[in-house]
Amino acid sequence: MSIRIIITGGTFDKHYDEIHGSLTFKDSHLPEILTFVRCSVPIEAEVNQLIDSLDMHTSNRLRVLESCRRALEDQVVITHGTDTMVETAAVLGEAGLAKTIVMTGAMVPYIFNNSDAVFNLGCAVTAVQILPHGVYIAMNGRVFNWDKVRKNKALGVFEETGS
Amino acid sequence: MSIRIIITGGTFDKHYDEIHGSLTFKDSHLPEILTFVRCSVPIEAEVNQLIDSLDMHTSNRLRVLESCRRALEDQVVITHGTDTMVETAAVLGEAGLAKTIVMTGAMVPYIFNNSDAVFNLGCAVTAVQILPHGVYIAMNGRVFNWDKVRKNKALGVFEETGS
Amino acid sequence: MSIRIIITGGTFDKHYDEIHGSLTFKDSHLPEILTFVRCSVPIEAEVNQLIDSLDMHTSNRLRVLESCRRALEDQVVITHGTDTMVETAAVLGEAGLAKTIVMTGAMVPYIFNNSDAVFNLGCAVTAVQILPHGVYIAMNGRVFNWDKVRKNKALGVFEETGS
Amino acid sequence: MSIRIIITGGTFDKHYDEIHGSLTFKDSHLPEILTFVRCSVPIEAEVNQLIDSLDMHTSNRLRVLESCRRALEDQVVITHGTDTMVETAAVLGEAGLAKTIVMTGAMVPYIFNNSDAVFNLGCAVTAVQILPHGVYIAMNGRVFNWDKVRKNKALGVFEETGS
Repeated sequence: MSIRIIITGGTFDKHYDEIHGSLTFKDSHLPEILTFVRCSVPIEAEVNQLIDSLDMHTSNRLRVLESCRRALEDQVVITHGTDTMVETAAVLGEAGLAKTIVMTGAMVPYIFNNSDAVFNLGCAVTAVQILPHGVYIAMNGRVFNWDKVRKNKALGVFEETGS
Repeated sequence: MSIRIIITGGTFDKHYDEIHGSLTFKDSHLPEILTFVRCSVPIEAEVNQLIDSLDMHTSNRLRVLESCRRALEDQVVITHGTDTMVETAAVLGEAGLAKTIVMTGAMVPYIFNNSDAVFNLGCAVTAVQILPHGVYIAMNGRVFNWDKVRKNKALGVFEETGS
Repeated sequence: MSIRIIITGGTFDKHYDEIHGSLTFKDSHLPEILTFVRCSVPIEAEVNQLIDSLDMHTSNRLRVLESCRRALEDQVVITHGTDTMVETAAVLGEAGLAKTIVMTGAMVPYIFNNSDAVFNLGCAVTAVQILPHGVYIAMNGRVFNWDKVRKNKALGVFEETGS
Repeated sequence: MSIRIIITGGTFDKHYDEIHGSLTFKDSHLPEILTFVRCSVPIEAEVNQLIDSLDMHTSNRLRVLESCRRALEDQVVITHGTDTMVETAAVLGEAGLAKTIVMTGAMVPYIFNNSDAVFNLGCAVTAVQILPHGVYIAMNGRVFNWDKVRKNKALGVFEETGS
């Protein structure tokens, strides 16, 4: 069974603009990563948008939802900024699609030596193949239901919330 | 719930000996990896042995089984050479322990720029928390039951076998 | 003969602050780099300041000059931001110290996968051992006299200027 | 003035063959390295051979000499295995070409995370532009005359020998 990866940017795909000395977006690194991790699951990756999740409005989140609906696959991984990942997860969770959707991202951009990006991608690609239909967040080596998670912004980790 | 990682070496943990220009073993890289991937699941890592799985005898595999039995955790990840991972999985599978055991490894050593090691670790750490008791192999982005998998040595990938 | 490396920060030593998603300073990476490049030349590294060179005032540049004067070594490498490296080079050049001083930096921080930092360090460490007393900039694989160089900010490269 | 880089293999360009779990040769990494280090010096790179220097015979070294003679440039960098770099340097040194020739290599292959390859390349590219005609070895951050150097095989470093 194949997986669709919907790319929305976030820290995961940040690019270093050396002329201005800043972090921005250019191309997604997903295709390159999928090659060297030797993933044999058929994967279709699409760039939905390349945005810092702090800059997302409802319209941006609805675009993500629309991509999920349109996907032929019922296993969808979404790479997304961590700051408002929970908000987008809520939009997707409330839509109640008959799909397994796992969101992930990174605290440190892939382009850095010690990034969590590739580890998180492994977590999400695995979770989406095993879990029943629903919406989840895979971060910090754990998998959370969309309505039982929050980002602890002081510590930079995701935590389970009481039900 | 915490996870025990039993380290047995394999390509995952190969070390470059520059004096002799060869790949050998020194220390495990697991502790360093677990730090930068920001895994918040409590993990206990133990070095069981550091061996190329082509050099394993039954006694080596029984040592791994013994470590699994002894573990207080019922979620166990094992890093292992890929060449005879299926053999060790069979020893563990036939023992029928009341634990979820996920084996993983790497086709390219962690110390290389484009290694699958960290991705595979993410896959295994996730699978072990979700799957029911049993023995599994997590490689190439997929999860296989211990008795339905083989390594395709020509292509260097793991495949499902007919039941 | 030993070399003193005077660290002033710049893009070379930028650090990623994952809580705020920004590039800042923490510790210098020089000690770690000098280890893995297997440099057998005796090197003394000191952190003079950790600053973006766009934020430097005359007082900051005079601090660098003072460190050069104070150094027991007559071979000095300075890691510095590229944006105003030429300005600091002028302060040092006009002081006319009886030392060989080579300034270098990086267009992409060391912490990134594809950084020029380590290459530039090799250039500077080599140039400082060969060149006669004077002040130089080593960037983009070239060595420039302090009074015959400028940074082309549009292209992000250093160029020789007419005499 | 442009530089010719003559590639002969050695540890610098080793490639990991994951099917056999061994280090071998495939393509040179020089073109890729020259891109990300932002070297603005015109450089022509040619693959002369891809061989472990322990496997070199006199014919292999004469091939390197021939490439140096044929080069239009009078600034030549040679990437070479470290084990018999001194032997090839002697062949080149005795030929007495009217060129500046700097040999370098790596103790740890470029494909590894903590390789000295890129640092050494920076050293060689810089030395070749400054030094007078002659044959040199640039390793461990130092530059040696071809007839005053040896590789300390126990320690894995290059040292100056008495004249």
